[in-house]
Amino acid sequence: MHKQKGILFILSGPSGVGKGTVRERLFEVETQLKYSVSATTRDKRPGEVHGSDYHFKEHSEFEKMIENDELLEHAKYVNNYYGTPRDYVESELEAGNDVFLEIEVQGALQVKENFSEGVFIFLFPPSLDELKKRIVNRGTESPELVRNRLNEARKEIEMMHNYDYVVVNDNVDYAVQKIKSIIVSEHCKRERIEEQYKKIMKADDFNVRTIN
Amino acid sequence: MHKQKGILFILSGPSGVGKGTVRERLFEVETQLKYSVSATTRDKRPGEVHGSDYHFKEHSEFEKMIENDELLEHAKYVNNYYGTPRDYVESELEAGNDVFLEIEVQGALQVKENFSEGVFIFLFPPSLDELKKRIVNRGTESPELVRNRLNEARKEIEMMHNYDYVVVNDNVDYAVQKIKSIIVSEHCKRERIEEQYKKIMKADDFNVRTIN
Repeated sequence: MHKQKGILFILSGPSGVGKGTVRERLFEVETQLKYSVSATTRDKRPGEVHGSDYHFKEHSEFEKMIENDELLEHAKYVNNYYGTPRDYVESELEAGNDVFLEIEVQGALQVKENFSEGVFIFLFPPSLDELKKRIVNRGTESPELVRNRLNEARKEIEMMHNYDYVVVNDNVDYAVQKIKSIIVSEHCKRERIEEQYKKIMKADDFNVRTIN
Repeated sequence: MHKQKGILFILSGPSGVGKGTVRERLFEVETQLKYSVSATTRDKRPGEVHGSDYHFKEHSEFEKMIENDELLEHAKYVNNYYGTPRDYVESELEAGNDVFLEIEVQGALQVKENFSEGVFIFLFPPSLDELKKRIVNRGTESPELVRNRLNEARKEIEMMHNYDYVVVNDNVDYAVQKIKSIIVSEHCKRERIEEQYKKIMKADDFNVRTIN
């Protein structure tokens, strides 16, 4: 069997829904999956590793990447750029590896414009009360910031219709199990493998007259 | 969370590919799945149970079911009718249960006409040589019948483009695992659950002004 091309999976969802936790747990069990490391212009924090946590870039370098269409998505937060380099994603897919992006909703929508064949998974809070709690319980943010983030979350949930799948994050292990199933199932989609199977049939030289 | 409507899964594929074995193994692990029992006019064989192996019907009864559009598909083999009663399938789906059909390719295409929202899974032989072997090794059939069945299988494989998923039956456990993943993943499809989630959002009364 010829090796199938890899698939790009994009996990996104509102702030506070638990994307990071789900992604970490998923990578503990799905060791074949390639994680797309973002590029950023922000300063490296203590303990962070270049190429593993982020690709750290100068402002001028990053702007050149934007210019040359080398990013599947990018955004600017607090004067720093963040983005997803296209070359890593495409070379891994070409090599037959699945790539996984965990990303904010706005970024996911940009990826969709640039790479519509990706599989878009929306992580949904078990309830909106629960989402409120999670945002409030981070504790590091001012009441005003909490309010803004909840307003933002509401808008982000309305973007759900751009996604292929919705996974409720009521339990991290269940959510991970569902994402694993989506990965397996996407590889079984007929339109992804039909051409491949047609080749097998020809190669197999299915000449029934040789029987008997 | 409101209970989601069930999904109809249809497993099909060429003669000899191992549909029955895969279905039996799947039902050992997926105890929530409802198996759609076929109706037939053929005689009950020793050990067969009415309502479990088949719904045994008189010819006149069966023809009335056809007339009244009470079958999702039906066919006649060797003067006997075989078919899938619509009422059982629909009532189980309505009750939120998934229903599973294991069926010949021609029947699956009929189900697709009558019930396009079903999920159609094509079981593919690991190779066509292997399929030849399996058909020959059944040993009960004449060389001519084997030839006919292989010709038929080739035509059936060409029907693959009508299906949603293709699962290769190189190993029964792998095939079952893939079908399980397809079941989980289909329940996460955004278009199946979007309305439900919108209701949750409204019920949740997501009024961020109550924070703080």
